[in-house]
Amino acid sequence: MLSNIPFDPSKTVVALCGGVGGAKLALGLQHLLEERLTVVVNVGDDFEHKGLRICPDLDTVLYTLSGLNDEARGWGRSDETWNFMEATKQVGGECWFALGDRDLALHVERTLRLADGATLTEVIAEISQRLRIKARIFPVTDDRLRTKVETGTEMLDFQRYFVERRCEPVVQRIFFEGADISRLNPLVSEELSSERLGAIIICPSNPYLSIDPILAVPGIRNEMKRRGLPVVAVSPIIAGRAIKGPTAKIMDELRIKPTSGSIAQHYSSLIDGLLVDHVDAEDATDIATTVHTAPTLMTDLESRIRLARETLAFAGRLAAGQI
Amino acid sequence: MLSNIPFDPSKTVVALCGGVGGAKLALGLQHLLEERLTVVVNVGDDFEHKGLRICPDLDTVLYTLSGLNDEARGWGRSDETWNFMEATKQVGGECWFALGDRDLALHVERTLRLADGATLTEVIAEISQRLRIKARIFPVTDDRLRTKVETGTEMLDFQRYFVERRCEPVVQRIFFEGADISRLNPLVSEELSSERLGAIIICPSNPYLSIDPILAVPGIRNEMKRRGLPVVAVSPIIAGRAIKGPTAKIMDELRIKPTSGSIAQHYSSLIDGLLVDHVDAEDATDIATTVHTAPTLMTDLESRIRLARETLAFAGRLAAGQI
Repeated sequence: MLSNIPFDPSKTVVALCGGVGGAKLALGLQHLLEERLTVVVNVGDDFEHKGLRICPDLDTVLYTLSGLNDEARGWGRSDETWNFMEATKQVGGECWFALGDRDLALHVERTLRLADGATLTEVIAEISQRLRIKARIFPVTDDRLRTKVETGTEMLDFQRYFVERRCEPVVQRIFFEGADISRLNPLVSEELSSERLGAIIICPSNPYLSIDPILAVPGIRNEMKRRGLPVVAVSPIIAGRAIKGPTAKIMDELRIKPTSGSIAQHYSSLIDGLLVDHVDAEDATDIATTVHTAPTLMTDLESRIRLARETLAFAGRLAAGQI
Repeated sequence: MLSNIPFDPSKTVVALCGGVGGAKLALGLQHLLEERLTVVVNVGDDFEHKGLRICPDLDTVLYTLSGLNDEARGWGRSDETWNFMEATKQVGGECWFALGDRDLALHVERTLRLADGATLTEVIAEISQRLRIKARIFPVTDDRLRTKVETGTEMLDFQRYFVERRCEPVVQRIFFEGADISRLNPLVSEELSSERLGAIIICPSNPYLSIDPILAVPGIRNEMKRRGLPVVAVSPIIAGRAIKGPTAKIMDELRIKPTSGSIAQHYSSLIDGLLVDHVDAEDATDIATTVHTAPTLMTDLESRIRLARETLAFAGRLAAGQI
């Protein structure tokens, strides 16, 4: 499949990724690149709940890249059951965050291994191997980094905002507790410095909630730019709306026009190109960065692979100085 | 139902209980006594697993007295599913101790509340209330008391012996770590001192593994004897065999003849009467304590209630000095 795209088949790719939307592109990329893909994942959504360490974005990537994800529900595992939650309710436990019976195993095992002294990176690597995932999945940092949402009246932990409050509160400010003192995962540095690296892709995750916490880790921006390799983002906005999640709502609340132009501006110092949905081709003419248009809606595996191929080809052309 | 048995219907009962076999009689007693029953439960089987505090005997009593227990399997909850275990296996976690998806909720909630500073007694009381259990269920102590099994070559934690090794190792000695410094649950003391108390029943649990750890808590034997109320045990042995679990096997290994006579001897300083299965009536003639014979096999709710009624009547006759 790679032979007909202008992306050097000896090169590797680093993709920055949040949850569901980003993981879909990561799956397409894994299909084309296999072991040559490294996914750097947001940990700002991570939290402690019922004594367990839960990493929503890492788990979405794990489940998506192993084919265990639930397509219809859009999150969590397929063939999931909810008897733990039902019994928790019966004994009066907290129920605002749904934990599937199968999903729970991952949280329990991760919590045990972290308590045993393993790093999150080590735990995810071990689980990736067990689930026979070809790409490498790295948390952007092993340090504590927590996304907080300021609403004017409240300071909410991310999952309280996202799940318990269903993104209903108006966002005034988003910040990343601990980011300033977090250390970039050394394996991410290594990957970004690799001679084999051909491109860096920012998946169509929420820029404010999912990609910004990755970019908030000191040093990563420099590492991304240092080699002069193409950095390509895929816009999560189609016709003024986000396919999944609160991206457009948050942009509105932050008084940012929900367009791909705003996404380009947000990433302006970092990216060399923005892949914009073909329905927005007309609006894209005044975007400052190089734009490539293509269908970005990923409804099935085929469309994920197609978008991955478009993205790699775009990066390949940028690398070759063709555009 | 109580009017036709010679047990004072204004009196309360304390029952000492281990797991499955004992809980069956406790259910029969609860049916007759409702709020007038207090069940004092073994905690020697308790252990920490996957970061969770698991209390097998307390949970069996909770599930049995709330009707949530699985009759066919003989342990755990009905309508149970095992997807957590399946997913745990998938990610390489320990699988020797089966945790059902519903059952898990109890362990997680208990662990959380204990970590919040609640006593085990408080946690069990709260859960009992949630599950609308009429009897009161008390752990014999809130302190750490752990049953250990010495096999000659190994010193095994109880659950490792019982579940992981399926009671296969030959038992040389059983002891109760922490028992000597454990404090009797003050609510158990209170109940044993109550003016309303009419009898104390030792359920047909394994004397060595389930009742002895209760009796190993300093002070409880004195509290049981102090008032001179009848203490009645129901023998777990029928025709030289135990209905459930390793009682007869362990008696054999400890070079004790697996008969109700041996049970009487084991409890000799404590009990005023032993209820023996009617098939063993002939062998029971040389038992030193007062014996009552009745069918002790509890195959359904009716037989549990019948045995509970027989036991109460026996205690009532002992209390009245009729035998």
